[in-house]
Amino acid sequence: MDRIPILQMGDLLLVTIQVDMHDQLALTLQDDLTERIQKTSARGVLIDISALDIVDSFIGRMISTISSLARIMDATTVVVGMQPAVAITLVELGLTLTGVRTALNVERGMELLRMDLLQQPDEESP
Amino acid sequence: MDRIPILQMGDLLLVTIQVDMHDQLALTLQDDLTERIQKTSARGVLIDISALDIVDSFIGRMISTISSLARIMDATTVVVGMQPAVAITLVELGLTLTGVRTALNVERGMELLRMDLLQQPDEESP
Repeated sequence: MDRIPILQMGDLLLVTIQVDMHDQLALTLQDDLTERIQKTSARGVLIDISALDIVDSFIGRMISTISSLARIMDATTVVVGMQPAVAITLVELGLTLTGVRTALNVERGMELLRMDLLQQPDEESP
Repeated sequence: MDRIPILQMGDLLLVTIQVDMHDQLALTLQDDLTERIQKTSARGVLIDISALDIVDSFIGRMISTISSLARIMDATTVVVGMQPAVAITLVELGLTLTGVRTALNVERGMELLRMDLLQQPDEESP
């Protein structure tokens, strides 16, 4: 397992994180994702973390980085599927994922992104 | 990591297999998936195996079982994202996944399922 798959659905990309992230895997994901955003002209990135029981500061930082990377490539990132226990831990730890948008599940995340795309029909800045 | 997440998108379910499957994980996935098909009235199941470099007889059998389970619950299963090397190995091993439909990637798999659903408007087609 040396990379996390990125699935394309129309102009959205879906990343499901299921495994423990380590440095190299996170870097590979960032590289792959930026390359895919460029290649597919994707406007939205969905990161599904429903499989994660624990989100530590490393994953939190990775998500923020991906979100910033995507933003400067004109794509919006939405984190979906966060377990209640994860949300509680994040807030207790003070890791509030500022600047990262969230949705309850993939469907709502896709809705959010679609609404977002409708509101910015030009290639103008988001 | 004790279960593989199942993502719902409309009346389709998406399962991305990224980790090495073992007996208990495969059984949990089958249980979860049948439960989700029933709960969500899903008509299609997409199994993404783009992260797998190797598909052995265990995974082959698991995919066939899931496909059969889904079929008797009135859902179609499509395997997507198979790597060329995996396809070659499968055919060389004689594991041709009979009865399992495949598509090149998630987008084509979704198209296939949508066409399928349009063609069988038996109950109330979505």
